[in-house]
Amino acid sequence: MEASLVRTQSLPQVIIVGGGFGGLSAAKELAGKGVGVTLIDKTNHHLFQPLLYQVATAGLSPADIAQPIRHILKNARNIEVVIGEVAGIDTQSQQVRTTDNRAYHYDYLILAAGARHSYFGHEEWERFAPGLKSLEDAVELRRRVLSAFEAAEIADSDEERQAALTFTVVGAGPTGVEMAGAIAELAQRTLLCDFRRIDSRRARILLLDGASRILPSFVEELSRAGVVQLRKMGVEIRTGTVVKEINDRGVSFDGEFIASRTVVWAAGNHAAPIGRSIGAETDRAGRVLVNKDLSVPGHPELFAIGDMVCFKDETGKAVPGVSPAAMQMGRHAGKNILLLNRGEVTKEFHYFDKGSMATIGRNKAIADLKFARFGGLFAWLTWLFVHLIFLVGFRDRLLVLFQWTWSYFTFSRGSRLIYGSFRPEKEALPKASDLTGR
Amino acid sequence: MEASLVRTQSLPQVIIVGGGFGGLSAAKELAGKGVGVTLIDKTNHHLFQPLLYQVATAGLSPADIAQPIRHILKNARNIEVVIGEVAGIDTQSQQVRTTDNRAYHYDYLILAAGARHSYFGHEEWERFAPGLKSLEDAVELRRRVLSAFEAAEIADSDEERQAALTFTVVGAGPTGVEMAGAIAELAQRTLLCDFRRIDSRRARILLLDGASRILPSFVEELSRAGVVQLRKMGVEIRTGTVVKEINDRGVSFDGEFIASRTVVWAAGNHAAPIGRSIGAETDRAGRVLVNKDLSVPGHPELFAIGDMVCFKDETGKAVPGVSPAAMQMGRHAGKNILLLNRGEVTKEFHYFDKGSMATIGRNKAIADLKFARFGGLFAWLTWLFVHLIFLVGFRDRLLVLFQWTWSYFTFSRGSRLIYGSFRPEKEALPKASDLTGR
Repeated sequence: MEASLVRTQSLPQVIIVGGGFGGLSAAKELAGKGVGVTLIDKTNHHLFQPLLYQVATAGLSPADIAQPIRHILKNARNIEVVIGEVAGIDTQSQQVRTTDNRAYHYDYLILAAGARHSYFGHEEWERFAPGLKSLEDAVELRRRVLSAFEAAEIADSDEERQAALTFTVVGAGPTGVEMAGAIAELAQRTLLCDFRRIDSRRARILLLDGASRILPSFVEELSRAGVVQLRKMGVEIRTGTVVKEINDRGVSFDGEFIASRTVVWAAGNHAAPIGRSIGAETDRAGRVLVNKDLSVPGHPELFAIGDMVCFKDETGKAVPGVSPAAMQMGRHAGKNILLLNRGEVTKEFHYFDKGSMATIGRNKAIADLKFARFGGLFAWLTWLFVHLIFLVGFRDRLLVLFQWTWSYFTFSRGSRLIYGSFRPEKEALPKASDLTGR
Repeated sequence: MEASLVRTQSLPQVIIVGGGFGGLSAAKELAGKGVGVTLIDKTNHHLFQPLLYQVATAGLSPADIAQPIRHILKNARNIEVVIGEVAGIDTQSQQVRTTDNRAYHYDYLILAAGARHSYFGHEEWERFAPGLKSLEDAVELRRRVLSAFEAAEIADSDEERQAALTFTVVGAGPTGVEMAGAIAELAQRTLLCDFRRIDSRRARILLLDGASRILPSFVEELSRAGVVQLRKMGVEIRTGTVVKEINDRGVSFDGEFIASRTVVWAAGNHAAPIGRSIGAETDRAGRVLVNKDLSVPGHPELFAIGDMVCFKDETGKAVPGVSPAAMQMGRHAGKNILLLNRGEVTKEFHYFDKGSMATIGRNKAIADLKFARFGGLFAWLTWLFVHLIFLVGFRDRLLVLFQWTWSYFTFSRGSRLIYGSFRPEKEALPKASDLTGR
């Protein structure tokens, strides 16, 4: 085994920072080609982020939607995987330094470090309103959501009970809508007979957004369909609402204070700071403004892809921060590196938009597949089908299908585990904001 | 729903402390009977502990072997479940106090708080050699085992690499044997193609025990069969060995120091201190010496069961700390409370020993079913069958069967997730020893 590695060390070296959809697609493009590749990620797993909300609401286990990166790439003998956190990049000497004081030389570099949730300058809100990007985030949110019902069950006053049963989701993009819908199902169906002192159906679920409508990345017609479906599930929607304050007791907005034990942040993203750290020009969300071939201006050997870049297509519209876009960029950056390595010129990236979908709950979703737009049961089935197809390579596709079928007919959610000790008092994350990207 | 609760409050109140095999069996015995029951547990889930080593070695997900206690008991309308940690018991006023300053009155009390691993006065070893009792323990051990291979892959010296690839299991009872076997399989099969710089098969797995043979609770013939099977898997066995020291670099024993990044503690248990706290007489392992009817001497209304008690049968042999014993005791304590409540006298407990088994690895196990003793493939199939049968009530029985079948044919282990950030340096648990029981 070591012999094969020595051979690859004489080849041009490519470093990929990040093992999400973008980085992994780039790695797959370079697998078995005449380059040595090192993929560096902070975690040991690739995460199927579109289903993260299912982990946060106890529908799926972490292992159902995550797989070790080195396992996915185990047959690509020219690729090494390193678990490490990038501390800095020296574009002069072409080195990536990690926080454990190791340095990795590159001839070509692909930055695919993703984004974290952004609190728009209110980083102190993170303790009270965690976001949903990593498995740790999801397990923490699951703990908070389930603990809230436990706290309500033993509450000493109606006031305390109502605050425990009030769930506020800030941000009504797909993640926020999915979270609100899944919490509503948990309260109205799954937990129905579990408690003795509370009626879980009395849970209040608020969905807030600063925009004038929910799911603003979708056409208005689908937005409206989403509103109808969410209201059926009892979710209260407040649009055009700007959050003023979040603390350990609840949320302030529109001159109102809502006592709410559990607050979920799904309002905005900020690109990994690694883009700015190399001196690249970035937009307001910290995203690198890349060239047409996905290279970083001034650095033909350096590419940036996925959620951490701002790429505008021919019409001037920014490519959305979704997994199909990241995967297309990953493959494209990989191809461009192979071209450069052969002394050829790189090609421009063109995004192929396959459409978008958001699920709202049981039998409820919206889908915009370009050639057709629809909501309801059929959109939900389409959502299920597409997500199961894209779990390809995940051992757990069959398991996930099995669990979903089971949950569908029984309303049960199998991963209702509270890790760490349950604390009945209102809780806050101990650690400060971590904005170093995925 | 609240109406039904009010009715139960006028009934005699039974408190059960602990939702393990013992506590849950007691609760099921009392379900629907003329008593009001409150079950208090530190966690929200009942854990199928015999499979915990599978979570620690990435074969199963936490949710596969754990289920919310209140979900299991949801149809028992006379039972309430409270997540809380017991701070103390006042046997005078018949109250259980929890750490969140709540007090619960009881007419009858069942203590089923289990045991934690014991370090025989060396509690400082826990940081370096965690044990395996809770889901948190298992997820932490999984993180350590998987991180060790990652650390070996990026090690700077042969010495560091070898220490990272050395796994020491202290204690060769069933848990220790299962852990050693599962780590061996992980190294020799599952991770085989995942790394580039190390050969995971070079991992060294040491199994230490102070006794003269492994699996001392089994007959000698089966012990020997276990040794043969473990040796085939490359596990080094050292019996008659007393550990002198465990620190952040490794383990000292028999005048030897073995550099070992990962140490697992499976050497001993100590009963939850709640037994001693009520002034009951206890043995060296902190286990309450209960009466023949499982009541605590001097307290006819107070029963103690499961791993936290020492109960000697007719022959003077102590009932072993295994789940079938805890379940039998739980049902018996429940029945005795119903007898007392009707003004009748309690009955003596008799343990029915169905035999015992330990699994060692793929196709490898030993079984002592009283009428027959055997090792190898047939013992392993028996082990599988019995464990799947006893996962009854767990939604995941089918899922677990599916995952095992899959793993059997592919050697894959699906839950290879490292939570929290990976730290390449040698790690230690930040928190001190927690001996407050399950």
